[in-house]
Amino acid sequence: MKLATYKDGSRDGQLVVVSRDLSTAHYASGIATRLQQVLDDWNFLSPQLEDLYQTLNHGKARHAFAFEPQKCMAPLPRAFQWADGSAFINHVELVRKARGAEVPESFYTDPLMYQGGSDDFLGPTDDIVVPSEDFGIDFEAEVAVITGDVPMGCTPDAALEGIRLVTIANDVSLRNLIPAELAKGFGFFQSKPATAFGPVACTPDELGAARQGGRVHLNLESVWNGKRVGLCSAGEEMTFHFGQLIAHIGKTRNVRAGSIVGSGTVSNKDWSRGYSCIAEKRAIETIESGEPKTEFMRYGDTIRIEMKGADGQSLFGAIEQKVAPLAA
Amino acid sequence: MKLATYKDGSRDGQLVVVSRDLSTAHYASGIATRLQQVLDDWNFLSPQLEDLYQTLNHGKARHAFAFEPQKCMAPLPRAFQWADGSAFINHVELVRKARGAEVPESFYTDPLMYQGGSDDFLGPTDDIVVPSEDFGIDFEAEVAVITGDVPMGCTPDAALEGIRLVTIANDVSLRNLIPAELAKGFGFFQSKPATAFGPVACTPDELGAARQGGRVHLNLESVWNGKRVGLCSAGEEMTFHFGQLIAHIGKTRNVRAGSIVGSGTVSNKDWSRGYSCIAEKRAIETIESGEPKTEFMRYGDTIRIEMKGADGQSLFGAIEQKVAPLAA
Repeated sequence: MKLATYKDGSRDGQLVVVSRDLSTAHYASGIATRLQQVLDDWNFLSPQLEDLYQTLNHGKARHAFAFEPQKCMAPLPRAFQWADGSAFINHVELVRKARGAEVPESFYTDPLMYQGGSDDFLGPTDDIVVPSEDFGIDFEAEVAVITGDVPMGCTPDAALEGIRLVTIANDVSLRNLIPAELAKGFGFFQSKPATAFGPVACTPDELGAARQGGRVHLNLESVWNGKRVGLCSAGEEMTFHFGQLIAHIGKTRNVRAGSIVGSGTVSNKDWSRGYSCIAEKRAIETIESGEPKTEFMRYGDTIRIEMKGADGQSLFGAIEQKVAPLAA
Repeated sequence: MKLATYKDGSRDGQLVVVSRDLSTAHYASGIATRLQQVLDDWNFLSPQLEDLYQTLNHGKARHAFAFEPQKCMAPLPRAFQWADGSAFINHVELVRKARGAEVPESFYTDPLMYQGGSDDFLGPTDDIVVPSEDFGIDFEAEVAVITGDVPMGCTPDAALEGIRLVTIANDVSLRNLIPAELAKGFGFFQSKPATAFGPVACTPDELGAARQGGRVHLNLESVWNGKRVGLCSAGEEMTFHFGQLIAHIGKTRNVRAGSIVGSGTVSNKDWSRGYSCIAEKRAIETIESGEPKTEFMRYGDTIRIEMKGADGQSLFGAIEQKVAPLAA
């Protein structure tokens, strides 16, 4: 099943069911109006949405309309939790190597995660508004899951059962604000502005055989200013799977319905696959020639992030954003 | 106006208006059922709640009932943002002095904040459930505000206008998990379990003259296992006022309605006022005699946190919690 949230002027938008091929959509209003409502009462509401989804796929839904990603908010326009992992250890290794730092041994057994802001997400085609180009504007292409309730103390395997939906994310980062902020010791804050999400969130069954071991074994494509810069595998090199990330959160607290958990920048050891964030490209340049050459994003730059299934069809639709200044 | 959220088995509870003296309450259901709904549409809904509040205070509300704090969830049982400051620099100075570290100069001009989990708050009398006593269980008595929409780039003064409600919080911390977690560089995660909030949230006008300069000039009392351990002033020694904290969040993103912003542990230079978290008492012991003597909390321990107005009346009701193990 594929779900999206249409802009309607409200804070939480209007839930729509989207056909498998992303061509048509149908308001879910007879069943539920908001995605959080569905996550809060999944067992009751999701079978009804699934029925509508089947009808839509068969071309039998009476009030279907053409699906337009630019009318989408994030599937959850605001959420009660956004917890982002850094589950591709290759990314951590590269960034550290570039600055001559070691990766602590514990990073291979204990996931690195940060708590993100979740009150104001961006839709897939919303502008990335940043007050200054000097902040070092970067994209980060990621896979993310949305959970149901997962109780405190759950195992990684049990946590996998708590995954309700899968999507993609652009975890925008302001690189030049990061060093000073992390030096303060309390993690990211101003260096992580609003995150954008894919137009559509899918139930895990939509991934078919690509869903294995708590990972999504498909490529995530990043296209910066019209040029493909990354086609990275989101599967085998994900050091910690999503069940492990959710269980990490759940060690000392309950993880409640509607929590969004990110993979962190998708990153592969094979540099020829390209990159899912500019910081990584700059790290590689630094390792190879002593200094970074690639600049961060400028106002007017575009970024397109998409994941296709084994059949070549777009799974979640594309994130397509432009960087813009804050209106005076 | 005073608002609370009654447990009704649902995730967001039932909004009630509470009388100024905390003796009676009235369901707000004719106006709104959930507090987030009111924050989303404050200008339309709050005057109606204010009318009910006046009627209740005059003893004229027809379906009023006795207010029982133990029936309360957190005013916002889950929120789209929980951002906690460390605005009392004295707390930072003490903790650093105890471990022989300097306070960076920038800490006096740039607020220290962390992004907290907000999907699963505790009500004022809910147990503090922790999987192990070895985690170093500590309370943290704080003041917190709940905001309306505050746009990116707002000034601290403008941000003050965005404060809708004020309450108290117990930002439970697991001290023994903090060093390893902060060493990873991405801030708190497992070391910050669910936060508890006071039974009642008040509009700022309820504070009268105690509200000044973006601070609450009243004492916050902490009673641990029946013994008062702190009666700390939440006012003049708050290095950064709430408008500054909100503006800090808003530097690179919008702050949306229902964001909760905490003061951090209330802390005073005059040690005779006691402490609002055990870590601080241990820091003082370390400074005075080379090592901490006071142990952290154990299962069965109780903590009571309350703030009284200039008239001696409880403003928000009391947080009264017990520490408990995770049920097998």
